[in-house]
Amino acid sequence: MSVTAPLGFRAAGIVAGIKSGGARDLALVVNDGPSRAAAGVFTRNRFKAAPVLWSVQVLNGGRVRAVVLNSGGANACTGPLGFQDTHATAEKVAEVLDDSAAEIAVCSTGLIGERLPLDALLGGVGTAAAQLSRDGGLAAADAIRTTDTVSKISFRRGENGYMVGGMAKGAGMLAPALATMLCVLTTDADLTSEELDTVLRRATSVTFDRLDTDGCMSTNDTVLLLASGASGVRPDVAEFEKVVTAVCGDLSRQLLVDAEGASKAIAIEVVGAASEEDAVAVGRSVARSNLLKCAIHGEDPNWGRVVSAVGTTDAVFDAERVNVAVNGIWICRGGAAGDDRAKVDLRPRDVTITIDLSAGPHSATVHTTDLTAAYVHENSAYSS
Amino acid sequence: MSVTAPLGFRAAGIVAGIKSGGARDLALVVNDGPSRAAAGVFTRNRFKAAPVLWSVQVLNGGRVRAVVLNSGGANACTGPLGFQDTHATAEKVAEVLDDSAAEIAVCSTGLIGERLPLDALLGGVGTAAAQLSRDGGLAAADAIRTTDTVSKISFRRGENGYMVGGMAKGAGMLAPALATMLCVLTTDADLTSEELDTVLRRATSVTFDRLDTDGCMSTNDTVLLLASGASGVRPDVAEFEKVVTAVCGDLSRQLLVDAEGASKAIAIEVVGAASEEDAVAVGRSVARSNLLKCAIHGEDPNWGRVVSAVGTTDAVFDAERVNVAVNGIWICRGGAAGDDRAKVDLRPRDVTITIDLSAGPHSATVHTTDLTAAYVHENSAYSS
Repeated sequence: MSVTAPLGFRAAGIVAGIKSGGARDLALVVNDGPSRAAAGVFTRNRFKAAPVLWSVQVLNGGRVRAVVLNSGGANACTGPLGFQDTHATAEKVAEVLDDSAAEIAVCSTGLIGERLPLDALLGGVGTAAAQLSRDGGLAAADAIRTTDTVSKISFRRGENGYMVGGMAKGAGMLAPALATMLCVLTTDADLTSEELDTVLRRATSVTFDRLDTDGCMSTNDTVLLLASGASGVRPDVAEFEKVVTAVCGDLSRQLLVDAEGASKAIAIEVVGAASEEDAVAVGRSVARSNLLKCAIHGEDPNWGRVVSAVGTTDAVFDAERVNVAVNGIWICRGGAAGDDRAKVDLRPRDVTITIDLSAGPHSATVHTTDLTAAYVHENSAYSS
Repeated sequence: MSVTAPLGFRAAGIVAGIKSGGARDLALVVNDGPSRAAAGVFTRNRFKAAPVLWSVQVLNGGRVRAVVLNSGGANACTGPLGFQDTHATAEKVAEVLDDSAAEIAVCSTGLIGERLPLDALLGGVGTAAAQLSRDGGLAAADAIRTTDTVSKISFRRGENGYMVGGMAKGAGMLAPALATMLCVLTTDADLTSEELDTVLRRATSVTFDRLDTDGCMSTNDTVLLLASGASGVRPDVAEFEKVVTAVCGDLSRQLLVDAEGASKAIAIEVVGAASEEDAVAVGRSVARSNLLKCAIHGEDPNWGRVVSAVGTTDAVFDAERVNVAVNGIWICRGGAAGDDRAKVDLRPRDVTITIDLSAGPHSATVHTTDLTAAYVHENSAYSS
């Protein structure tokens, strides 16, 4: 169902010829209203792709009629001509929908530094517009894949019957192959763009922002939330946030499981922190330790590599009070060896590393993957 | 020649039985004076190994009679008992030298979280003391190896005939397998501990601190500089700094080339920066991009992965004025595609990535390695 699960949305995913090989490479998602309220969050990378620069401006207006997305090229680091290509794409969508380009968001994903084939792109927009339908969500989710092995879709029903749907590809803070995380969320609930903005920032901060498979940040990351209001339901905003967070969490999990070359999904659960910021900082530092990620790949419960990563942060803790468990066995207690590490079973795909800072009541979980030879192989051969 | 190249030093490297397999695992370096002035720099990791906690105290006094170093165990995260083991080791060295433990520095390297075999260690101190000699520098350098495939030694002669010698193992900011960087530098020049401290901080900040092979920071990193004054030469401090920096640079280069699993030595040269701090921050960010390191392994001049890493920093630059060259070919100009990337020859082991921020006159070079399946294999199997 994906982005077309909520009322008021049509979508399509088609072969525009941007990618070689004949796979789907262009998606169009249209909001038929009655509302067009929308919000977006974007990469913090200072090299922002042309579609990001464009869509930031569109979202400043708080209204989105449609989103056009392409795989097969990121349109990043392409200069003023690349920005013109994005602009022309938005104009083409506006033309086929008989609407304003100022309400058309654009997303691109693929290699950095190359211009998109504009004729294929603009032709594809026409084809996609002709195929828009209420059940086009799956084809749209398929069309935005790059190295993703499966489409990522999700939906949840909220109180009083409104729906939230979504599709995603690649990864954000995961950034496998800088393949970019793109995500479009839709709802038929009726909310203002300000409400959507608040909810989207909060939901992404505890889901997509806490995925970190290789520490790399894309030039193109974009998460959009579009509301049609077609259900007529005005939800409680707190309840709506829970539903959106659940959809984002579900999509995040799908991204994690499909991360390039990974054989383990690692949850780094930081508890006993003096603040949530401390917990996230510690989790992120551990998630970025190549040595730890190699150890988990080798099913070695190497807590020394955990505490070494903890020790590089500014978080509040006393080294002699830090405890670490791997899959529930507290193998480090008080900053030194604890229970028998032979008791740790690292054979399952899911691994939980719990770090107790003994410094306060706050917690956070950051998700990452192991580091494998397959990751190296996939990313050594990406563009050549 | 190593640490015994300068006058006034004796050393030994022996088999104490700390490592299984019968390799050398204990080194002793003794300063016979007349001066005992010394300085040290240590890991910034907040989980500091017992020998680091001990040696920091010793170096606060500015005088070192001897350094005892062991491989086969890091004595990190071993609690109060681990600290007692370090103390006992220093006392044993003091006893055999008929000197004060307060002037005995201790260094350890190996696995985190396990106690050292104290009997083997103390017995080894006696054996090493009996073998101390003016040509023991090579054996000492051999005894501190862990995953190092070769011993790292260096020496330089300064003006008016004084000498600076050194030995090193593993890696500091490189931290292959958290194998720790240990380095002992010696000189027969006559300088105060304050002068040595200033010189050592400056020399390490532009050499060891600019190696970054996997972003991991050890619990045990230690660099010591001991001056015997035995040459009678009081060097010009600026000239002395150049010689010490040359020795540190030489040892850094040896560490880089021997980093675990690496097939490329990558120099990330940042120019046109608004400050040296900016240049180092950009260099370090690029050095830590797993995606770029995979690309270089695959001999793919993927400048998109370079600018993506640059874009995550706070350095002063305008994205539209950044230029990137790989091995001298400016494949990114003005933040977009530049010269033909097919002209880049990435077959040599040495790779230079030049990043021109077009923001000022400052520069810095950070050194790293590629990311390979061999790195993953070596670090998946380290302790299991």
